[in-house]
Amino acid sequence: MRMVDDRSGAFIEILKDLFPHTGKAHIIGITGNPGAGKSTLTDRLIAAFRAQQKTVCVIAVDPSSPYTGGAILGDRIRMTRHATDEGVFIRSVATRGHLGGLSRSARDMVRVCDAAGFDVVMVETVGVGQDELEITRTAHTTVVVMAPGLGDDVQAIKAGLLETADVFAVNKADREGADATVRDLELMLALGGEAMIALSKTRGHGAVKAASADVAADALHERPDSRWVPPILRTVASRDEGTTALVLEIERHRAWGKDSATGRDRTLARESEEMREYLREALIEAAVADLGDELSRTVHDVAEKKLDPYSATERLVAMFRRGQKE
Amino acid sequence: MRMVDDRSGAFIEILKDLFPHTGKAHIIGITGNPGAGKSTLTDRLIAAFRAQQKTVCVIAVDPSSPYTGGAILGDRIRMTRHATDEGVFIRSVATRGHLGGLSRSARDMVRVCDAAGFDVVMVETVGVGQDELEITRTAHTTVVVMAPGLGDDVQAIKAGLLETADVFAVNKADREGADATVRDLELMLALGGEAMIALSKTRGHGAVKAASADVAADALHERPDSRWVPPILRTVASRDEGTTALVLEIERHRAWGKDSATGRDRTLARESEEMREYLREALIEAAVADLGDELSRTVHDVAEKKLDPYSATERLVAMFRRGQKE
Repeated sequence: MRMVDDRSGAFIEILKDLFPHTGKAHIIGITGNPGAGKSTLTDRLIAAFRAQQKTVCVIAVDPSSPYTGGAILGDRIRMTRHATDEGVFIRSVATRGHLGGLSRSARDMVRVCDAAGFDVVMVETVGVGQDELEITRTAHTTVVVMAPGLGDDVQAIKAGLLETADVFAVNKADREGADATVRDLELMLALGGEAMIALSKTRGHGAVKAASADVAADALHERPDSRWVPPILRTVASRDEGTTALVLEIERHRAWGKDSATGRDRTLARESEEMREYLREALIEAAVADLGDELSRTVHDVAEKKLDPYSATERLVAMFRRGQKE
Repeated sequence: MRMVDDRSGAFIEILKDLFPHTGKAHIIGITGNPGAGKSTLTDRLIAAFRAQQKTVCVIAVDPSSPYTGGAILGDRIRMTRHATDEGVFIRSVATRGHLGGLSRSARDMVRVCDAAGFDVVMVETVGVGQDELEITRTAHTTVVVMAPGLGDDVQAIKAGLLETADVFAVNKADREGADATVRDLELMLALGGEAMIALSKTRGHGAVKAASADVAADALHERPDSRWVPPILRTVASRDEGTTALVLEIERHRAWGKDSATGRDRTLARESEEMREYLREALIEAAVADLGDELSRTVHDVAEKKLDPYSATERLVAMFRRGQKE
């Protein structure tokens, strides 16, 4: 399966053939800040799903350089205990230097694993960039892993990351500050991430917490049944604590996604976004291949200020559509 | 200048008109992990450039949600002391939910500020995602701000981030661990980020440091003169320490970029990448506008597995090129 990073014509043909066989796996995104313990937790989840006789594929997306194409692969080492298990397949994928490339590679890998018949496909990413957020859209269920004491609370909050969460795992829950992290999450779910951040900046973090504890508790129970309220679970992955409860919530979310109207709408929205991503990538690739030298000439013209980049873009789009290379 | 986030046809026309007036500002990227003190340092740099009678524009890019379009704006508050200074313009820009949108908005803002005659344009971003890395490509000079004690060294390393650096500022240099951060950076510059990470994973972080101190010192001086070796500066932005030295290195880098062949090559490479980004965005926008309902129909067909997404993409690209809506 090494060739999955490649996107030759032959590989696309394979993906086409595989597509009718996809749709059976439960695709789970595991994301969170560096140091939250994602890899250890993923390792525990693998074991839990294996105990249910499910086969598991893990796609680990590593932040990597757009300049050298290299990747940081360290964490994979922690999962090697599954290396001899035939029911487990673990693969790292790294970006190939272009915007969107990371999410596309990951998405293709997910499809291959799905078609290959794996029951569970986990995509583990560092939840820091736009690319990584795109990847979580591939998942049916996204688990956001937090840990107490990972630096400045407010600065560490990525609004987008919080909003992708279907299930929160507060990992390293035996550490000091875990209760505070859980309370912060409850509050944020109640108020919405934006509101809370704004509030804490103007009125002070402590004040917000004190004043809003009741609001949080109320709001969590006020939501209509058709909406999914992300549960917040405590885990200590290093000691395998909380894994079973986490698996239960992950599976409950999958059932909601399949059975509720809101869940099905979300699935369609995700697929629509995927299609747009494929289209975006295909268009630029075709244009770069077609326009070739014209593109280089245009860059030089813009650099010398003979042409502005906006008019240049319009001209290139028009050329591409006409299929001409003037 | 509120409309700069917008991309209506009229706005594009304004950008075209402004383009011939661009090219005079020194564009400086300020990036680094959350908590490194970027905003405080930017504030000090504003004051330093103002003391030179230079006008300064700051574009602060906030990580924001692809789901709500909201942004985290807290840090801007720290810069309000410049709010009454006519020679300073500060603006936050947030992504509008699509991949690449963040870098495009920021790039347009940079051009507007450049054309408006600002001497210095600073773009401050959180150095965490692909999008943010793209933004640093807009800059002539990128300052990567680090701080000691921001968690797990190896996990915190973003190879791409390190490689965008023209100047390193080790901020909060009065804190414990600052010497270690400086040594790590020296080592990484000598060995290259990838190499060091690999080494530290296999042989242990301490061992690598001890063994390679000499290598680092040597390598820093062995490089040919035409290459730019990123200087590593210590700053304590909260007390305005090290600001002058930082400004000097930033200006030295600008001179190198203008006067050396390597510097000019780099500029052209950056402009080429920008052009490609413009093209990418223009293509998907034109395609979505053109294909309209056909795109929605295709998404449904793929969702129902009547069509695979790869064949669907090919069909949509072909339709777009023919300008037909079957």
